Amino acid sequence: MSKKIILDLDTGIDDTLALAYVLASPEAELIGITGTYGNVTVAQGVQNDLDLLELFGYPDIPVYAGPTHPLASDSFEVLDSSGEFHGKNGTGDVEIPAKAAGSVQEQNAVDFIIESVRQYGDELVIVPTGASTTMAAVLRKAPDIENKIHIVMMGGALTQPGNSTIFAEANVLQDPEATKELFSSSADITMIGLDVTTKVRMSRQDNEQLRATGTRIGTFMADMIDFYIEVSERYDSIPGCNLHDPLAAAVALDSSLVTTFPINLTVDLEDGRGRTIGDPARLLDAPNTKVALAVDGEHFVPGFLSRLMWLAISA
Amino acid sequence: MSKKIILDLDTGIDDTLALAYVLASPEAELIGITGTYGNVTVAQGVQNDLDLLELFGYPDIPVYAGPTHPLASDSFEVLDSSGEFHGKNGTGDVEIPAKAAGSVQEQNAVDFIIESVRQYGDELVIVPTGASTTMAAVLRKAPDIENKIHIVMMGGALTQPGNSTIFAEANVLQDPEATKELFSSSADITMIGLDVTTKVRMSRQDNEQLRATGTRIGTFMADMIDFYIEVSERYDSIPGCNLHDPLAAAVALDSSLVTTFPINLTVDLEDGRGRTIGDPARLLDAPNTKVALAVDGEHFVPGFLSRLMWLAISA
Repeated sequence: MSKKIILDLDTGIDDTLALAYVLASPEAELIGITGTYGNVTVAQGVQNDLDLLELFGYPDIPVYAGPTHPLASDSFEVLDSSGEFHGKNGTGDVEIPAKAAGSVQEQNAVDFIIESVRQYGDELVIVPTGASTTMAAVLRKAPDIENKIHIVMMGGALTQPGNSTIFAEANVLQDPEATKELFSSSADITMIGLDVTTKVRMSRQDNEQLRATGTRIGTFMADMIDFYIEVSERYDSIPGCNLHDPLAAAVALDSSLVTTFPINLTVDLEDGRGRTIGDPARLLDAPNTKVALAVDGEHFVPGFLSRLMWLAISA
Repeated sequence: MSKKIILDLDTGIDDTLALAYVLASPEAELIGITGTYGNVTVAQGVQNDLDLLELFGYPDIPVYAGPTHPLASDSFEVLDSSGEFHGKNGTGDVEIPAKAAGSVQEQNAVDFIIESVRQYGDELVIVPTGASTTMAAVLRKAPDIENKIHIVMMGGALTQPGNSTIFAEANVLQDPEATKELFSSSADITMIGLDVTTKVRMSRQDNEQLRATGTRIGTFMADMIDFYIEVSERYDSIPGCNLHDPLAAAVALDSSLVTTFPINLTVDLEDGRGRTIGDPARLLDAPNTKVALAVDGEHFVPGFLSRLMWLAISA
């Protein structure tokens, strides 16, 4: 049976790869994309989503805009570091070789998600790969659906330092208050954080296989990934680039790719702002969050690559 | 086959309970106690060890004094918080009802541990329940025995906040440089941190069972535990007291009490000083540390209590 998926993206190079992965997965039915902020603004992100859906051959999948800034602020500006990692346009300064005819839906992301949870319940998994603001807004607006929500999120770091600060992972640091609300809810959450995403890497050789497809999609993705590997290797001591968002998308479809640890989490809003850590106040309560601590990278990375190659040659 | 054990204690209420547990365990052979600082000074700690061994009926087990202060400092003073939790004398201001005839060994703790590792190899487990200074000194003085060392340490916190600061657990914060050296070595380390020790608690009812033995040992331990429960309940939202050090001792004898996660760890020496966290530089290397993340408390706590009761009535 196919799984219904909503991707909540701040598109973003690895968001683009997560989208490509889901579209190339026969067991997934992408029912919509909701746009959040982080790597890019919501406006830039949803335009990227529309153009990418056009490029990948799925122009009919609807795109919804979500909240444009954190709960505790009334504006958002893209960080310099985000621009450095994802390019000014989000796709590594490589132009998406397609232009969408359609535009973003009138319905907002929050109402679309609430409606979808009510309609599909346990058949639906939501995959946020940016700030948690949209999901926090969903919980505030429709607290009655809390325990019907299934989330596989890319974000946080439990057993490794952060990547924005030594305490905080970038997505959570965008809106720590929102992630804290999410963790405090009874929603079913799988956290795909730096604990595992830093262990799955794509190499230059992998990327050359994608490029060798010779198609418009293959060339676009390979150019974009080259940009990502280039900047990643400036910061990391090992070659290649991490596959943060694609891993979350893959786990939404196949939970056996990771081994998880059940724990009730909270988010530090003070000295270690954005740190995702066990909540001592709920230490002995039944946990609602599963944190991925180990990953079957030898299974995931080749599977990821082959699906992207399939999309490149078949779309 | 019995397991040879060295307890490296800063004695301390829960250190005392760990000692009692090991003495009451037929599968353990305690070959010596080494004294470190933390809950008390080394001088106070080793005197407590000697008197406790007298009380418990094991006056022939040797006690060795270790380094008296952290690597990066030339003195040590007991923190107010340590005095609050363990009393001025380390045993909750309850006098140990026995006086040792013997005194501390002339050989120092570091040399005793090195000699013991060379002699016993894999048969020996060292259980540090205070600062890591002694073990760091062992590694510096005898780097050739690094991979013969087996340690089950009480200290650190990977998935929960610290108890000295929001980042640091008390033992590690005594000498973060030393713990970092330990984690960087190839020694086989099992970390019994706040992740699990905060999940195993002794209740007032448990303590009344111990008191009901009516013996000198039972009364002493029950009085001391009452002090510990009193101060613990002032800080924790749940009744009873944690069994930090006894859990480490118990895992040294029976590793099936915990479920561990393999990871290479480091210690933050800067903004999150004393934080035990995954080492990104060794992310993909084979891990030498196992961090306990889950504990079989329903097995451990009753077993702990019954062994202490046995010691109380039989010594």
